[in-house]
Amino acid sequence: MKFLHTADWHIGKKLHGFELTEEQDDAYQQIVQIATDEKVDAVVIAGDLYDRAMPSEDSVHQLNHMLVDLNLDRKFPVLAISGNHDSATRLHTGSEWYSATNYFLNTELANAFEPVEMNGTQFFLLPYFEPWQARNVFEDTEIRTVEQAMKRVVAKMQTAFKPDFQHVLVAHFFAAGSSQTESETKVVVGGLNAVPLDLLALFDYVALGHLHNHHALNDEKIRYSGSPVKFSLSEAAEQKGVWIVDTDAHTVTYKEITPLRDVETRTEAFATLMDSTYYDQLDRDNYYGVTLTDRAIIPDVMNQLRTVYPRIVSLDRKYGREDIPTAVQVNPNLDPLTLLEKFFEHVNDEPLSKQQTNWAKTGLNDARKED
Amino acid sequence: MKFLHTADWHIGKKLHGFELTEEQDDAYQQIVQIATDEKVDAVVIAGDLYDRAMPSEDSVHQLNHMLVDLNLDRKFPVLAISGNHDSATRLHTGSEWYSATNYFLNTELANAFEPVEMNGTQFFLLPYFEPWQARNVFEDTEIRTVEQAMKRVVAKMQTAFKPDFQHVLVAHFFAAGSSQTESETKVVVGGLNAVPLDLLALFDYVALGHLHNHHALNDEKIRYSGSPVKFSLSEAAEQKGVWIVDTDAHTVTYKEITPLRDVETRTEAFATLMDSTYYDQLDRDNYYGVTLTDRAIIPDVMNQLRTVYPRIVSLDRKYGREDIPTAVQVNPNLDPLTLLEKFFEHVNDEPLSKQQTNWAKTGLNDARKED
Repeated sequence: MKFLHTADWHIGKKLHGFELTEEQDDAYQQIVQIATDEKVDAVVIAGDLYDRAMPSEDSVHQLNHMLVDLNLDRKFPVLAISGNHDSATRLHTGSEWYSATNYFLNTELANAFEPVEMNGTQFFLLPYFEPWQARNVFEDTEIRTVEQAMKRVVAKMQTAFKPDFQHVLVAHFFAAGSSQTESETKVVVGGLNAVPLDLLALFDYVALGHLHNHHALNDEKIRYSGSPVKFSLSEAAEQKGVWIVDTDAHTVTYKEITPLRDVETRTEAFATLMDSTYYDQLDRDNYYGVTLTDRAIIPDVMNQLRTVYPRIVSLDRKYGREDIPTAVQVNPNLDPLTLLEKFFEHVNDEPLSKQQTNWAKTGLNDARKED
Repeated sequence: MKFLHTADWHIGKKLHGFELTEEQDDAYQQIVQIATDEKVDAVVIAGDLYDRAMPSEDSVHQLNHMLVDLNLDRKFPVLAISGNHDSATRLHTGSEWYSATNYFLNTELANAFEPVEMNGTQFFLLPYFEPWQARNVFEDTEIRTVEQAMKRVVAKMQTAFKPDFQHVLVAHFFAAGSSQTESETKVVVGGLNAVPLDLLALFDYVALGHLHNHHALNDEKIRYSGSPVKFSLSEAAEQKGVWIVDTDAHTVTYKEITPLRDVETRTEAFATLMDSTYYDQLDRDNYYGVTLTDRAIIPDVMNQLRTVYPRIVSLDRKYGREDIPTAVQVNPNLDPLTLLEKFFEHVNDEPLSKQQTNWAKTGLNDARKED
């Protein structure tokens, strides 16, 4: 069994107000190309297909279009679950019909225990769930944490294990020991919200969704695919892609997705950023998180930058007031004019001009007279 | 070809704040029973499956459950379109998979011209649309009204007519000459929003949705099924049901749906309504629109009535202030006490008591002193 493992498509997601529709369509096309080139037997999508429980009509149209293309037109079997961003009920629509064409979409915990069998592999499709749902399914009011629930879930799945089959779990949760970035909504579930890895040891592979970095977890058999698109500045340095899992050859290979428009961070002086010898070497179609090293006030700074970088997603200053050295903070041993000169030079990286010095002297004299 | 014609399920609809979930489930069960008893070849649903473009999760669950039951479990072919209350995009979800089990759901004008063929009948599934959509489909900016659009729609459908077939149109619009009630949202579309009947003459049957009264249109071959449930007080006197259409026998039969809880209007005195000899003869589980014939102030009237009639949906007075005869309005020829006595008696249907007369005299004397 050879399958492609992806997750966290987050259709409808915006990056600081910018629609990512084109990026997501492009990433989808690359996923299809990888699936075709690798001749996979199925595509696994481990939750968070939508970014919101109540997706917009455009998002509904976009995701439906992808899934029709993937399953009906290109005939890839699809194994999918709902994530914490999806509405299980809404995403469920039509799923009773989908299985006829080997599109298995599970959004309900209760349906996670009957595996989908394909090419000698049993796939257990475990959607995102909360402890109260496990309490209902197991009729056990003692279940309070995801860890407690997962013990029961895995034990129940194990009763359906066929010995000669490989066993793959598709799930959407926070695995203990993973590192989180800022664009994943924290899954808060009771007290303990992390699933210990030893609970998952009996599976041949665990295809996870939820964390957007495929390096989030360092394990041979338990992996996050990460998102196919960068969804926050904190993901700027990440390489996006999908896993190709071969349960017969026991290989797992990461296939990269090249971003249509990348997400980058730049820490520079305003003058540098506006200099064509600098920006001509950049792909200015990318999304930029800009940190200015300037201390001077720059009028209309965002609009000026946007003439060069149309997709600035954030603008910060490297040096805030807290960076002004104590030496130039109010120092009673310096006369007011020297203090002003030092402060001005520190903030603006240049001394007061002659004209400015005259204005300062006049102003300080006037202030003294008022005393 | 024998089919059941229904429409306007409006899943999610509330009647003055009361959920109609149970009424709709019950009506659905009756529809299934009729379809089974009549051995129909298909069930036609002519739009407004949902009450809202953005249905709640409960509504999504309820409608999906009905359609899974109807098509997958009971194996009825289903022919459905979106109405003006549905979001075409949202309702469309899954429809590419549905047709494999003879559930044909069309939500796009552009797809209305390829008929579904079944038992010697061509079904043209025309969803609710607006003139701008016809302008796009026909690439003709001159189309301004639904009437203009329908001329083009029908002409295009006609090119697909097979001579030996019956031709049935399933549509959702306001047909000229129909009578509207208050619970249908008015379909406002450009200037002329009504479709003239002569445009529809070439069809053997036109299965319409939109108006909730099956008597809304008086035509042999062009019919509204009406809604399966009463959705407003103005529908209180209507009989709900579905049409059974036999295109071979050329018969159209109306099959009644018995309401789980009926909608009734009552115009009575408060004392009558609260009298057990009166209300013991009623089904007090029904929804009541109450008009009181009393003129007196009745403290906490709604809560008192609700102890007997838990589902009062509206409360009006038959006699408002405008019904006070001019004789007792300010008449300069009467002394203040007489005026007050007459007014009190008119409003309360009884004279001032001795105690009340004393209070009135004291009050009027005090007022006179202040002058």
